[in-house]
Amino acid sequence: MTKQDRAVRTRLALIRSAAAQFEAHGYVRAGLARISAGAGVSSGALHFHFADKAAVAEAVEDAAARALREAAVRGHGGDVCALQRLVDVTHRVARLLCADVVVRAGLRLNGEGAAGRVRDLRREWRECVQGLLAEAERRGELAAGVTPQRTSAVVLAATTGIEVLAREDHEWLARPSLTDLWRLLLPCLAAPRLAGVVDPAGSEPVRSDPAVRGPVARDGQAEAEAGRAGLALR
Amino acid sequence: MTKQDRAVRTRLALIRSAAAQFEAHGYVRAGLARISAGAGVSSGALHFHFADKAAVAEAVEDAAARALREAAVRGHGGDVCALQRLVDVTHRVARLLCADVVVRAGLRLNGEGAAGRVRDLRREWRECVQGLLAEAERRGELAAGVTPQRTSAVVLAATTGIEVLAREDHEWLARPSLTDLWRLLLPCLAAPRLAGVVDPAGSEPVRSDPAVRGPVARDGQAEAEAGRAGLALR
Repeated sequence: MTKQDRAVRTRLALIRSAAAQFEAHGYVRAGLARISAGAGVSSGALHFHFADKAAVAEAVEDAAARALREAAVRGHGGDVCALQRLVDVTHRVARLLCADVVVRAGLRLNGEGAAGRVRDLRREWRECVQGLLAEAERRGELAAGVTPQRTSAVVLAATTGIEVLAREDHEWLARPSLTDLWRLLLPCLAAPRLAGVVDPAGSEPVRSDPAVRGPVARDGQAEAEAGRAGLALR
Repeated sequence: MTKQDRAVRTRLALIRSAAAQFEAHGYVRAGLARISAGAGVSSGALHFHFADKAAVAEAVEDAAARALREAAVRGHGGDVCALQRLVDVTHRVARLLCADVVVRAGLRLNGEGAAGRVRDLRREWRECVQGLLAEAERRGELAAGVTPQRTSAVVLAATTGIEVLAREDHEWLARPSLTDLWRLLLPCLAAPRLAGVVDPAGSEPVRSDPAVRGPVARDGQAEAEAGRAGLALR
């Protein structure tokens, strides 16, 4: 391994360790000593990569933002209806949150404005949802009277609630929560011709690799693996 | 005013001031000096009423819990259908959150487990929602296949999301957010015979007193007034 490879690995290990500390103790209480210890490096190594705690938090947020944006744009080609793609992207983001402590911690830090808020991930998420609803509207997939703007607010509220409730109980990120949500929303959202066509459980096959494992990875080892796999995607 | 009346007033003023500090700066960063200054009393007076910051936070949570429980049980007699009562209680709680900084701060402290979590207000809220859905089921008000348990999870997620999003933008607590939510959910929830019967905007008249003013009180003075009015109810 070259010196540069080692530096990249150390930086990723620090980001993962910091995310775990932020998730467990919150930004204010997380300590730099435990972050470097968790990454298996000295505090000198931490300070080589990051000036202070705010810089580590910014790196966690940054990694989370990249992973979430990638999950938002990934997916089917244009042959799947826009409403199905909307359902699918919510399941994809939930799987990502489930598997990757960096994404969970980064999203939470961003919501709390801990790193000074250079981006607003909830606003980006709403824009993603609203964009898909607008496309659904253009394609005649929405029921009469359903507007992308107001519907995106409802979807933002429900998915934000799931993310916040999952901080105490990861089961909220498992497939049934979102499936129940879509089962209740879709009949009102979808044009009559799409009745029964859009699958509330999502239409994407769930890969069994660690980054997208379905059930919640509860043990630290599995989570660390999932985190590594997630980060390696970026 | 008797000495006892003054003590009660001072305690309420400290609770309100602490709630405002917790809301603005978070539990960890809120300082006792600013809390006593905000209540117009000395730090000695604060320590006469509360041993430490955790005790003040516990009092804020306690006041919020009482107000929320009262809002949950208030309302119509048995002549209004259970689904309408469910819609109405969500609007009532949103108005309470809108008007009263103590309720907002107490609910948030409870969600973050700041005061050691002697109660779980989100669990209580879910039980309230599920109880009304179970009553709706008994009365034949639910559509086929709708279960109180899974539906209460969706309502909990959506209302939790609204509460969290409102921390940055109070407009989320205004009537349209909840009305849009119910407009999308009710057609799937309600038995066909109730189509168009349940009002998603709520069926209760909105009183114009400060504690339940409809539009969001944005200025500090109006909020302080609303807070006083809210606390006086308990």
